[in-house]
Order: sequence, then C-alpha cells, then structure tokens
Amino acid sequence: MINETDIQFLRQAIDLAREGVEGGKGGPFGCVIVKDGVVVGKGCNGVTSTNDPTAHAEVVAIRNACRRLGDYQLTDCDVYTSCEPCPMCLGALYWARPRRVIYAATRHEAAEAGFDDAFIYREIGLEGGERKIPFVHQPVEAATELFGLWRVMGDKKLY
Amino acid sequence: MINETDIQFLRQAIDLAREGVEGGKGGPFGCVIVKDGVVVGKGCNGVTSTNDPTAHAEVVAIRNACRRLGDYQLTDCDVYTSCEPCPMCLGALYWARPRRVIYAATRHEAAEAGFDDAFIYREIGLEGGERKIPFVHQPVEAATELFGLWRVMGDKKLY
Repeated sequence: MINETDIQFLRQAIDLAREGVEGGKGGPFGCVIVKDGVVVGKGCNGVTSTNDPTAHAEVVAIRNACRRLGDYQLTDCDVYTSCEPCPMCLGALYWARPRRVIYAATRHEAAEAGFDDAFIYREIGLEGGERKIPFVHQPVEAATELFGLWRVMGDKKLY
Repeated sequence: MINETDIQFLRQAIDLAREGVEGGKGGPFGCVIVKDGVVVGKGCNGVTSTNDPTAHAEVVAIRNACRRLGDYQLTDCDVYTSCEPCPMCLGALYWARPRRVIYAATRHEAAEAGFDDAFIYREIGLEGGERKIPFVHQPVEAATELFGLWRVMGDKKLY
C-alpha cells in the first residue's frame, strides 16, 4: 500500500520539520500535500514564531494547498506528515477530505517529546465538565433557531 | 456557574453566526473570546468564502485574539461559541489553553443541520485503518531522530 514514492514524500515532510526547527519557526513537525504526484501544499509548525496556536504543520499545509487549488476540499490528495496528526489536525483533515493520510512518528513519540497530542486525544472522550478545560453547555434558543434557518435556506454552499 | 454576562457574550457569538450566514461567509457558527470582561477576539465561519476548511468560527477567533494579545496562549480567557466545538476546534482550544469554553447548540444539533461534527467525533476513536479517511503509519527513522534532537535542544520555545 505504501510505495517508494510515498516514502520520498514522507521524507520531504520530515525535512520541512527539521528546517522549521533550525529556522526557529516552532516545533519539529512538517507536512506535504500531494495531488497527481505533484506537491500542492506544504508547511511546518509555526506556532511560536507567528503567535498562532493553530499553525500546526498540517493546518498550514492544508491552507496552503487549498489556496493554491482554489478549493476548500482536498479531493484526491494525499497528506504526508512527519508525525501522527493531533486531534486539531485530524479534524482539519476530515473537513478538508483528502484521500489518505500517511504519517511517520506517532502521538506517543510526540508525547514523549513534550507535546500534548496524546493528552488531548484522551480529553476528547471525556464529558465537558470532566475535562481539564471545562466545556460548559448553556442552551440558547437563538442558536437552535439558527440551525433551523440554515436547514431550510436555499442557495447555500455546503462543506 | 454561568451568569447573565456569560449569556450576553454567548448571544454575541450567535449574532456573529447569523451575520456570517447572511453575509454569505459560511456556515452558521460564531465565536467571541473574552479576557477581563473585554472581547479580545471574534470570528464567524468562513470556510466557503475563503477556501479555507480550517476557518471555523473558533479557529478564526483564536487567531484573531492571539494576534491582538501578541501571544500563542489564551491564558485567563473565556471562549463563547454558538455551537459545541468540533474536534478540530476542540483541539485548537486545547492548544490555546483558555480558562473555559461555553457553547449554546450541541454537536447533535450541528449534525442534524448537516455538519460532520458528530461523525468526526466518532472517527477519532477508531484505529487509523478503520477510518473513512485511512490514516497510515509508516515509521521513518529520521522522524524519530528529530524528536530526539528536539528533546535535548536548549533555547527552545515550548507551547
């Protein structure tokens, strides 16, 4: 299922991760997105250098690829990333809908290097009140009404 | 635990969601971030209008607030969002580390309105090969080595 070309793209992602660290951009993570054998987007972690906690390699690469493709979907794309995506990046990938995701290091290796990936994976399964950051549900009628409006709205762009 | 001021900020988030839909920016989602009683960041969904699948209300608001605060952390901030955060936004919030998250509608209401939130929550718990988008682990020595380098590196900015 994984061939030599896949491993070369994976190595490109790891090289980006290394360059990012060496350039003081952020943590050791890199990502490359490929469509029809061509790199259409790439990125490395830029959290600390850009004051953006969402600037993980995968998110940066997804944005980069979508800008280039002029689309909010990564149809038929493969995503190569130096490490297993954290829950934020996993979610971003589901919204972008590529064909597959190939990663080298695991969330456990990331955790051993001091990153919260495995911790956040555990927190997701908890109820809002049990989480380290409390997630409080406060129903407001207007929010429910808005979904009702959306459902019957014509001429809307789905994603 | 939730007071009248909280509900007012929650209403602001819902208003942003409605304005976003009316302005053709994207889905019916809005978010407001508050520190010491002051709104420091806000956003609405802009996925389809900006070709950015990561432009959910919370992600837009987090980036907005972090830019304004000049920090990659939302220390002592409260996040008010019109709907329960999807896994991507939940992950983004964990990385930004606010004090609490207050939401109005639920992931199930979002699902009924046609959004993948609940689906992605289910996918997260599956093994990579069982997911609708396959996540393939392909170990590469260089990726593991890079984490080793990061661990012993001095003068690094943690996040």
